[in-house]
Amino acid sequence: MLDLNNLSVAIMGGDAREIVLAEYLSNAGAIVNTFGLPAQGKNIVPYRDPRECILGVDALILPVPGVNEQMRLHAAYLEQPLIITRDLMELLPRGTPVFVGLARKPLRELASEIGLELVELMRLDEVAILNAIPSAEGALQMAMEKMPITIHGCNALVVGFGRTGQTLAQLLLAMNAKTTVIARNPAQQARAIAMGALTADFAELVNCSKNVDVVFNTVPALVIDQNILSRLPAKTLIIDLASAPGGTDFDKARELGIEAVLAPGLPGKVAPKTAGMILARVVPRELVQRVMK
Amino acid sequence: MLDLNNLSVAIMGGDAREIVLAEYLSNAGAIVNTFGLPAQGKNIVPYRDPRECILGVDALILPVPGVNEQMRLHAAYLEQPLIITRDLMELLPRGTPVFVGLARKPLRELASEIGLELVELMRLDEVAILNAIPSAEGALQMAMEKMPITIHGCNALVVGFGRTGQTLAQLLLAMNAKTTVIARNPAQQARAIAMGALTADFAELVNCSKNVDVVFNTVPALVIDQNILSRLPAKTLIIDLASAPGGTDFDKARELGIEAVLAPGLPGKVAPKTAGMILARVVPRELVQRVMK
Amino acid sequence: MLDLNNLSVAIMGGDAREIVLAEYLSNAGAIVNTFGLPAQGKNIVPYRDPRECILGVDALILPVPGVNEQMRLHAAYLEQPLIITRDLMELLPRGTPVFVGLARKPLRELASEIGLELVELMRLDEVAILNAIPSAEGALQMAMEKMPITIHGCNALVVGFGRTGQTLAQLLLAMNAKTTVIARNPAQQARAIAMGALTADFAELVNCSKNVDVVFNTVPALVIDQNILSRLPAKTLIIDLASAPGGTDFDKARELGIEAVLAPGLPGKVAPKTAGMILARVVPRELVQRVMK
Amino acid sequence: MLDLNNLSVAIMGGDAREIVLAEYLSNAGAIVNTFGLPAQGKNIVPYRDPRECILGVDALILPVPGVNEQMRLHAAYLEQPLIITRDLMELLPRGTPVFVGLARKPLRELASEIGLELVELMRLDEVAILNAIPSAEGALQMAMEKMPITIHGCNALVVGFGRTGQTLAQLLLAMNAKTTVIARNPAQQARAIAMGALTADFAELVNCSKNVDVVFNTVPALVIDQNILSRLPAKTLIIDLASAPGGTDFDKARELGIEAVLAPGLPGKVAPKTAGMILARVVPRELVQRVMK
Repeated sequence: MLDLNNLSVAIMGGDAREIVLAEYLSNAGAIVNTFGLPAQGKNIVPYRDPRECILGVDALILPVPGVNEQMRLHAAYLEQPLIITRDLMELLPRGTPVFVGLARKPLRELASEIGLELVELMRLDEVAILNAIPSAEGALQMAMEKMPITIHGCNALVVGFGRTGQTLAQLLLAMNAKTTVIARNPAQQARAIAMGALTADFAELVNCSKNVDVVFNTVPALVIDQNILSRLPAKTLIIDLASAPGGTDFDKARELGIEAVLAPGLPGKVAPKTAGMILARVVPRELVQRVMK
Repeated sequence: MLDLNNLSVAIMGGDAREIVLAEYLSNAGAIVNTFGLPAQGKNIVPYRDPRECILGVDALILPVPGVNEQMRLHAAYLEQPLIITRDLMELLPRGTPVFVGLARKPLRELASEIGLELVELMRLDEVAILNAIPSAEGALQMAMEKMPITIHGCNALVVGFGRTGQTLAQLLLAMNAKTTVIARNPAQQARAIAMGALTADFAELVNCSKNVDVVFNTVPALVIDQNILSRLPAKTLIIDLASAPGGTDFDKARELGIEAVLAPGLPGKVAPKTAGMILARVVPRELVQRVMK
Repeated sequence: MLDLNNLSVAIMGGDAREIVLAEYLSNAGAIVNTFGLPAQGKNIVPYRDPRECILGVDALILPVPGVNEQMRLHAAYLEQPLIITRDLMELLPRGTPVFVGLARKPLRELASEIGLELVELMRLDEVAILNAIPSAEGALQMAMEKMPITIHGCNALVVGFGRTGQTLAQLLLAMNAKTTVIARNPAQQARAIAMGALTADFAELVNCSKNVDVVFNTVPALVIDQNILSRLPAKTLIIDLASAPGGTDFDKARELGIEAVLAPGLPGKVAPKTAGMILARVVPRELVQRVMK
Repeated sequence: MLDLNNLSVAIMGGDAREIVLAEYLSNAGAIVNTFGLPAQGKNIVPYRDPRECILGVDALILPVPGVNEQMRLHAAYLEQPLIITRDLMELLPRGTPVFVGLARKPLRELASEIGLELVELMRLDEVAILNAIPSAEGALQMAMEKMPITIHGCNALVVGFGRTGQTLAQLLLAMNAKTTVIARNPAQQARAIAMGALTADFAELVNCSKNVDVVFNTVPALVIDQNILSRLPAKTLIIDLASAPGGTDFDKARELGIEAVLAPGLPGKVAPKTAGMILARVVPRELVQRVMK
């Protein structure tokens, strides 16, 4: 555990993940100001005024989903919504690091204008790979809940072979699902073969669509389109893990009676404590790199 | 697929599993009379009168849960409950095989008095082993739904190492849970070690109870008792797969704030189609052995 | 570690396995007399006279292969062969436990006549299951050495599904071999299916024989006979793990140009230290049960 | 299978891998001229004169190890060594593709001067990933041959987490070795954690060195140096898979009595047929891309 003594951070809003993070940072010695987050610990100081919360801190930690397009803070435990204003952010000195999962345009622009250093945690390879574990388990859980058959022995298609696709394919294979990976390039296909999966490229996806029980899409582009959907058995389940709006033609699926579910942001939903521990693994190191010079 | 031409069976009551079975038998050539089961197929003949349904058949198939202590038929699709009477059963000639999952005392006595051959499918090793797959997946699904952490990396205890315990331990290990198997005899422990699990015997269960995230009990005797419960962290989840009343002191668990769930009969609940396919794998062979001489 | 203080044993002959065992017993506090075994430790006392070695001990430990039909002791480190005579054994009081892997008829008869308690360690389920691990790895190593292809992706047949068959099938599946298990009864087949293997019964073995790369036999009866051999591709490798004379028609195989190897007793050959540790896991408990009353 | 009709290639020298490749290309319809390679097939034409062999071909295929620093051709089946001269190569028209595993400087310079298109197959991600499978199995086989213990339960260190490191770690974990991956960056460590491995970075390598049974190095730089070696138990086995001269201080290891083996080029040695099939998977596509316009 890195020693974070003499360091002070503010965590604003958030959900169960940020509680885990706040408690971890506090245990590591940091002073943790919170706003709208019921975390508890010896160095955790809750504030009712957002301005007081961030005054004088070395870094600001926003929740993983950050703020929406209207700059409203994601805050599961806050009754009154809070808008993150320019005035508020200007309380932070130039160069202060602001951690967030992913930032939308308004936040990015504001940070850049004021001269704050935005750190988007979900863009770190390490975080993305570790988050693929709860994502894959969450996708699996949904498939288990919705299918009348076991994962063992089912015909599963994993579309895309990035971080989530890799971890998901490995999990399905470990559970003895007959798993076919649809991957774009030969190197990804080779990696899938090494894992023990069957493989095909996107041109062959159409032919893989007969006898499928479940399709897991991880590609953020319209790949499960009308053409593919029309080949799938009606009983097929589609779980789309790509970020909204997903890679499935959901209207067409509904029309054909195929159940298709968009399931982004699974880590925070299915395993918030694990998702929080992933933040707690990364944030201290990134903090120290930026704050303690 | 065995050829079941010239064979006629009655399926009374049942749920999604018996639909799969009825359709399989019909596809294999058997005439399938049904009562209270919306199965469809060319050789499936639905009856509204239970007496007509079983008249002249070579075998009677009751649903997996059979009939309750009051001889009421398990029938998910039947609005009016049906009591299986002696009169009804006497329509079957002596020696007729009657298939059921497990039979309670009243059914067993009735069959014995009338001279029917009761075949309890769940007592077949093959069925028990295959059913362990959906049981294990169902237990896993419940754990995923109820825990705020991933299976990957969690500390799991599997108590008992019979069919369900073995399949469950294998699944947990495949998903990278830190898995400890509590088994009675050295041979079972050796088998668990071969799988890659940690092991302990029941005397050591107390010491294994610190730092546990989830306990899966498969032993149908009071093993998760007050003594064990008092050592478990409050956040522990207990999933008890043993047949009712399970192997957990549920009252004590509630008192200690430990979540404990009794989860028997998972295959029919979480994967009815797979559970039906398991019946369809076994019943034709058992039928032919008994009926076609 | 069980406390073996005040206990004295003699280990006669043996190989690398008995060295591991001797050192373990010595570390546990026992006095260990040895004859023809270069083990070293504070409580290990080497003898040059077999009579002195066993005089006054609480138990005698013979090596895993014991003595041959002529009562010659298995002793890898002994230059002069030693015959275990009646005179020698009669130095042990009636009821003294004599440990051995497996006993042939002459030893069994002698022990019975003198009234010694023969303990055949290889007959313990626990030992057999644990020994299946080095056996399976040894079989795999031989296959790797002899095949020009990888285990990954090869077509493997595992004939028989006892302890070695189960562990071997699991290992092959873990390495992504396409694995078919030939098992006699439906319960064994169900267990193989649960593992993710393909299955067939012995009647279907003939049909499974096309396209096979490697056959692992574990059945101690002539199952890989002329009929099966004639269907196998010439390039097939047969590794026969059944105890001598194995389950393969080796003459016919040679005639057909199929490489077939009899490979019994692998644990002691490929992983003597692990095999010794397995003895060290079991012998102390069995000793204490018999000697310390 | 791609159709290679109307295509003509020369394969010069080579070993068992190139035999597989030659036969595959011939089956796909290509005319395959060979020199010093006993491959057989309807379109395979053996030549005794290297000049005649390459005259008029669309592409030249050199063996995986190519030619050495003195331009001598790698040719397992050739009694008289052949030097690849400028004169010989100039028989190929400018722009002709020349396939080779990896090219040393002299070959690279010659090709560049004459204007031939050198294609180094081992630099293709796909080939490197697929070759990692036989490499990992070969490394495992060596470990099995040299260790007196099973892989199951042994303490293994995998140093480096590129393609070979990843596949090797996965294999070790599948075989239930206690596996620690030493990886440089957090993203690689995250991937190793997702697999179920323990991880450490290079700074911690020293601390991981106690209790190790086997070290697999895949890093082509001196990482297993004097400092690390001095912490390893004497019984440790080191298998160095990095390209020559490896990443181990072999002199120091010998001095300390630690067995260390340099094992480069495993695919061609332990699984030549699989290695040949990997070539056969890639070469046709690369050929067609370059030759058929």
